[in-house]
Parts: sequence; structure tokens; C-alpha cells
Amino acid sequence: MLDYKLLEALDAVAASGSFEGAAQRLHLTQSAISQRIRQLEERSGTVLLVRDTPVRATAAGQKLLAHVRQVRLLEGELHEALEMVVTDWLTLRIGVNADSLALGLVAAITPSLQAARILLDCVVADEAQTLDQLRSGEVLGCIGTQPQQIAGCGVIPLGVMQYVLVATPEFVARCFPAGLGTDALADAPAAVYGQQDSIHRRWLREAWGLQQGYYPCHVIPDSTALFGAVCAGLAYGLVPQPQAKDALERGVLCELAAGEPISLPLFWHHWSRQTAPARVLADAVALFASKLSD
Amino acid sequence: MLDYKLLEALDAVAASGSFEGAAQRLHLTQSAISQRIRQLEERSGTVLLVRDTPVRATAAGQKLLAHVRQVRLLEGELHEALEMVVTDWLTLRIGVNADSLALGLVAAITPSLQAARILLDCVVADEAQTLDQLRSGEVLGCIGTQPQQIAGCGVIPLGVMQYVLVATPEFVARCFPAGLGTDALADAPAAVYGQQDSIHRRWLREAWGLQQGYYPCHVIPDSTALFGAVCAGLAYGLVPQPQAKDALERGVLCELAAGEPISLPLFWHHWSRQTAPARVLADAVALFASKLSD
Repeated sequence: MLDYKLLEALDAVAASGSFEGAAQRLHLTQSAISQRIRQLEERSGTVLLVRDTPVRATAAGQKLLAHVRQVRLLEGELHEALEMVVTDWLTLRIGVNADSLALGLVAAITPSLQAARILLDCVVADEAQTLDQLRSGEVLGCIGTQPQQIAGCGVIPLGVMQYVLVATPEFVARCFPAGLGTDALADAPAAVYGQQDSIHRRWLREAWGLQQGYYPCHVIPDSTALFGAVCAGLAYGLVPQPQAKDALERGVLCELAAGEPISLPLFWHHWSRQTAPARVLADAVALFASKLSD
Repeated sequence: MLDYKLLEALDAVAASGSFEGAAQRLHLTQSAISQRIRQLEERSGTVLLVRDTPVRATAAGQKLLAHVRQVRLLEGELHEALEMVVTDWLTLRIGVNADSLALGLVAAITPSLQAARILLDCVVADEAQTLDQLRSGEVLGCIGTQPQQIAGCGVIPLGVMQYVLVATPEFVARCFPAGLGTDALADAPAAVYGQQDSIHRRWLREAWGLQQGYYPCHVIPDSTALFGAVCAGLAYGLVPQPQAKDALERGVLCELAAGEPISLPLFWHHWSRQTAPARVLADAVALFASKLSD
């Protein structure tokens, strides 16, 4: 078996960002920590930490850390099975899409998190990219768009998130007087979450043949700020239907392409070897999603 | 002088993410694009692009791209000085703190952006870290906490953002029955924006001697979601006063350490060689900030 004393030192350095912090945490001297890391690097034959400020794990180091996290989860389950009192919080790292966060995922699952003493560590990525984080072991579960399960993992359908194409009435009159069309879309400023791929960019590419760089585009990496900019008339946006509902009813926004929502089926992917707290989390996420897609 | 035909090819590949996209954009063949990039790499003696999907600039490539962007901005100013009609949108990349985005920065400056046909490309980072992006040429302006200007740049004070420490009354009764204290803070779950440094983590470290890893902590990289989680009673949070105002008045939240707001002076840092659109943007940001700190 691996030497978990060494792995614990690695985990402590990664969590605190320094050898000094790890030493404090494990009540050891800094030189004891250095020695353990050196031993671990010699045994694994590779560098595990980038000695920067803060200290970071290398790709190889991250693989070891993912393993430590899985072992800790299993230990958590063991404690529970033995009816030991769980005194520590358990941190679960998950991959989420920005829109789920903005629509109140965390607030909605708060009661489940509190009851199970779960700390969430959310990593935000595009729905199409979260699976890579699951594959690399960085997260133990994620919201993704792929229906097929990946090796070593299970999958739960979360329902379908509806997106609507919206802008202010003034914006529509100015930029889309004749409705949607390639020329109008190539001139009207869009608002997207990030430089990377997104549902809006995919829609422009697949439905209209417009590649990135061929349309004016504001990049606003905050869902709420993006929606606020659309309501202020800066741009048109492809946003989740529940986010736009009120503004549509009040006439602040109107729908471009009315009656044709763009659907995004979402799935919860998770490690097959799922602990009880991870199952609690998955159930809470599924309940939140079912309410959104109602 | 540099060969701007080659730099334009580099810019097109970086903007579209592929050699094919760049060829379409510049109405050239793909092999012409490849040849230009190769020439540029030979002359600069270094690899400029990572041939991945999408194609990305290396650190050296990014420096060249930052230069191209500066030249484009100067050209924009020239057009204006010559009273040429500006038909194209101008993209300005800026570094912003997440809280400014969440508090409606983009919506507030929309009229200025529209009038000057500015497209925003926001890069989110902690207030203490945005300056690095300015130094590297990645952004032309940023919101930061340092009052001193950096070489080649100017600085404008944006006023002081007040932060308040808040939680639901139930949370306070459960986790802080005797008020703030090291032991209570080491046990009560906090909510922070990211794994990296933040005003909340600095406060725990500097005011209470609590290092990262010594307190339970939810990581929620979305300001609105973080605030929603605090309102749902998941954690306590150190949030901007304007964000908490309504919830405090309605009694949904109450202040821990009432009457002692934590102040964060903010500054707009920008390249000294500022074009007219960049000045428009700086003025709009300063106006937004002055309203927030009123």
C-alpha cells in the first residue's frame, strides 16, 4: 500500500498553499514536511509540487490528491457505517455550469448540505467541459450535457434546461428590425459568459454558420451581470428561461425567435463508488433541477 | 518595424481559435496562414501558438497579441482624429473584481459603451491580482486595490467599497452565540468566492490569525450565488454593503461585528497611452464606483 503519512503531507501542502502552513496544520516541523514530500517524489519518480507562492500541485500531484480525496470519502463512509460520530466537515468538490449556480443551486440544496455537514467546493465550467474534470479526478460529480456515462462513473438525468433568446424591445427594434438573420446576427452585439465555447456560441455556429470572431460580442463571466447587461440594453443574450421569466412578463425583455426555446438536457455524472454524503448531494441536485425544468 | 501582416495572422488565429477560422476571416488560404505563423515564429525564435483545439497563444504569443491590441487602439484613435467614420466595434479587455460585476458595473456603464461602440471583454480576478494582468499587457485597464501607479500606467481612485460580515439570525444564534471569536470562526462555515486569496480569507488571517485550511469553507465562484447561499443560511459571508443592504433592512440577514464595516479602497489602473474610447470607459467606471461608495 501507499504511505499515507506522505500523502497526508502532500494534501496539507496543497490545501494550505505552503510548506509552513502544512507544518502548522499537521503539528510537524517544516523540515519534516519537506522530507515527506521529497520521499514521495522520489518514490513516484516525478515532481509533485510547483514550489511557487502559493505552492501548487503538478498534474502528477493532482492525481495523487484526487486519490487521497477518494480515500477520505471512503473513510467518511466507514465512520458512518460504524456509527462513529462525524465531527469534521466533509468537503465535496463538484463541477457546475455557471447558469445552475446563478439560478440558486447552492441556496436550494442548503438544507441537505447542512444536515450532512457537507462543504461545497464548486468549480465552474461550461456544461460541455465539466466531464473532463470528472475524468481527471478533480471533482467527484458534475453537471454535464452528455447522456452516456463515462468509465467508472454513473449518470442521473437532471431534466432539460430551456434557454430563450432575449433583448430589450429597443434593442430588437434597432438591431433586429426584420427578425433573426445571418446579417443581423453578424452586426448585433451578443453577451456571452466566457471566451471558451458556450451554448450561445454553439448556437451561432451550428444554426447560423457564424464562427467566433465574426460577430460582435461582450464577454461577461458572471451570469447575473450578463443578464443585467441584457436588461440594460447592451446586448442580446441566450439565457435560461427561469432567469428571464419575470423580465419577459414585465415587458423589460422580449423574445427573439419566440416560441422556439433552445433545450439543453443536463445530467449529473458521479464516481460509481459513491459515498453516502455524495448520494445526499446528488439527490439534492436532482431535486433542484426537477423544479427548474418544471 | 514588425511585419504587421504576420501579426494580423497571429491575431486572427488567436481570435478564431483555428487556422481555418483565421483563413476565412482574412480571405486567405489556410496554408498562407500557416506560412505566416511559421515565419513569425522563425523571426521571433520561439513558438507562439499551442496547436491544440482551440489553438491558443503561448506566453510569448500573448505578448505579441497584447502589442497588436495596443496598435489597434492607437489606430482607432488615429481614425477618430482624422474624423474617419468608425464602422467597427472596438474590443477593450479589462480586469474586474467579481463584486463589481455582481453589483451591476456593466449594466451601469451601458450607455457609454453603446455611444462609443465599445465591446467589453471582462477578465475576473481578485482585486489584489488584477494588476498582474495589466503588467502582462493582457488587459488595458483594471480595478485594483493598490494606490500606487505601476510603470507605464496611470491610476484613478474609485472610492472605497464597504464590506459587511453577515449571516441569517438563525445562523448567528447557532454559530456565534457569544459573538465573534477565534474558536467560533474556526467552526462556523464561511462562504468565499474562490480557492485563491480574497478579502474574506485575508480578514480571517490578519484579524484572527486563521490560515486557509483552519476553518470550514464553501467555495462558490459566483457573487450572486454566494450571497444567495448566505441568505439561505448555509454560511456567513463578507459581502459588499450595497449587496446586503436590502436583506439587512428586511431582517433576512444581520450583521456580525455591527458598526465595523471593512473598507476596501479601489483604483482604476490603466495604460498611460490611453485612447479616447479607453478614457470613456475609465470615466464610466469611476462614475459607477462613486455611486456605489456614496
